[in-house]
Amino acid sequence: MGRLTTRRRITRLQRTDTGVSSRPRNDVLAAEEPLELRVGGQTLTVTMRTPGHDFELAAGLLVSEGLVSTAEQLRSMRYCSGTDELGQQTYNVIDLDLDPALVQAALSTRRHLMTSSACGICGTTSIHAVHKALPEHPPKPQLSISAETLLQLPDTLRANQDLFASTGGVHAAGLFSGTGELLQLREDVGRHNAVDKVVGACLLNGRLPLTGTAVQVSGRASFELVQKAALAGVELLSAVGAPSSLAAELAETAGITLAGFSRGNSLNIYTHPHRVRL
Amino acid sequence: MGRLTTRRRITRLQRTDTGVSSRPRNDVLAAEEPLELRVGGQTLTVTMRTPGHDFELAAGLLVSEGLVSTAEQLRSMRYCSGTDELGQQTYNVIDLDLDPALVQAALSTRRHLMTSSACGICGTTSIHAVHKALPEHPPKPQLSISAETLLQLPDTLRANQDLFASTGGVHAAGLFSGTGELLQLREDVGRHNAVDKVVGACLLNGRLPLTGTAVQVSGRASFELVQKAALAGVELLSAVGAPSSLAAELAETAGITLAGFSRGNSLNIYTHPHRVRL
Repeated sequence: MGRLTTRRRITRLQRTDTGVSSRPRNDVLAAEEPLELRVGGQTLTVTMRTPGHDFELAAGLLVSEGLVSTAEQLRSMRYCSGTDELGQQTYNVIDLDLDPALVQAALSTRRHLMTSSACGICGTTSIHAVHKALPEHPPKPQLSISAETLLQLPDTLRANQDLFASTGGVHAAGLFSGTGELLQLREDVGRHNAVDKVVGACLLNGRLPLTGTAVQVSGRASFELVQKAALAGVELLSAVGAPSSLAAELAETAGITLAGFSRGNSLNIYTHPHRVRL
Repeated sequence: MGRLTTRRRITRLQRTDTGVSSRPRNDVLAAEEPLELRVGGQTLTVTMRTPGHDFELAAGLLVSEGLVSTAEQLRSMRYCSGTDELGQQTYNVIDLDLDPALVQAALSTRRHLMTSSACGICGTTSIHAVHKALPEHPPKPQLSISAETLLQLPDTLRANQDLFASTGGVHAAGLFSGTGELLQLREDVGRHNAVDKVVGACLLNGRLPLTGTAVQVSGRASFELVQKAALAGVELLSAVGAPSSLAAELAETAGITLAGFSRGNSLNIYTHPHRVRL
């Protein structure tokens, strides 16, 4: 199994009163390895990720692409038993056994699911595509969260990040209840992967849709992160960084509360502020 | 043409001595829109990006995937003249006219160029794939940069970021000479796109390979960013954030100086420190 971190000898530069000094140092880096997902022997996608929780990542990716919404539709996952040139099993290829009715849909998403191939591709097209993948009768919204609790989510996330503590260089996603209880946390060099791992863990535990929950992420809020939250049924997405325009538009349409620039003592709410109690 | 930013009415929460206050505010968000690239009428890829410098982004993506290394190989680019449902030209689809010898190679990269489909896919496989795409006889390295100059690159980058100043939410990539002169700067909601735009601009200006230059990025250094630097012939990549393990390994193999955690008064050099003068 891949390691989460690797050690490396580095050169540290530091500005001092008399110029810049240099000294060697040992450093810990977050691991990054490719992960290939296969359906029916064909490549569905290849993503760079931090090894660990790979089955959750695979499951979460399927949810985020609108392919799977229950654990039953994903019949089994296993690491490909092949080896690399040195005869090592790399644990970097997963064979997915999907409900046969979904295989064709899965393979046809290989180009890029949530986009139209019409000439008029635009943000609205993308939002519409996500909308079509959402359930027609979603569960009734349940989340209500106090402003104080919402402001504390980034600190709670950071305090529980094992990998960040050692490397300073990974993103995290945390699933929280309305009272601020941390339900799930995953880390990865890719911020999208961290969210997919959280969502996948919930799919595999039979906990989707994630009605009544909030997700806090360590980076910015892109369209794709809101898409992942929407497909998983998350009611509130909070980011430490900025949201993009299309992220806010999708959150508006999908009924998700979107918060950004959450920096301890302040934050911005871009959409559906009614879930946040003062 | 798409706009670089959009305005939005938001709710600002602020912690005060007596609790959390809430007030409405106007905010500016960085625009995000899908961009579809087509070759021979078929979709090559769809990427979410901040509109603007789209031809550069397209050209840079082709360089980063090892498909194109001279401006001549990319014979022309034009926006698809089709419209969306409302009859609007979205400027989100680009038709690429490649050298006919390259069309098949381009379309076969649609799954994911820089990976093997062997069971033994791993970081080493990925590094090997990038290596194969590099020129057999690269130009002689030329870059020498003082530690003081290298430490100042993030500040220079930030000071020249127009979009960041208004939104607080976009990544940037800057191309620098060894004396710290800013040669090119591009911003995007996606940090990969910012680098592709810089590389694409240089391809279109006939300035590849980028021997003798350094690139400073605003975020972390992933495998893919080092890959882009390697394919463009950049000699030094410096990141404000952390590198991943595989980013450092690729930089080592490709002969690129990789710096990270560049925070004004200090930074780490992970590979090939000889280009940095104290």
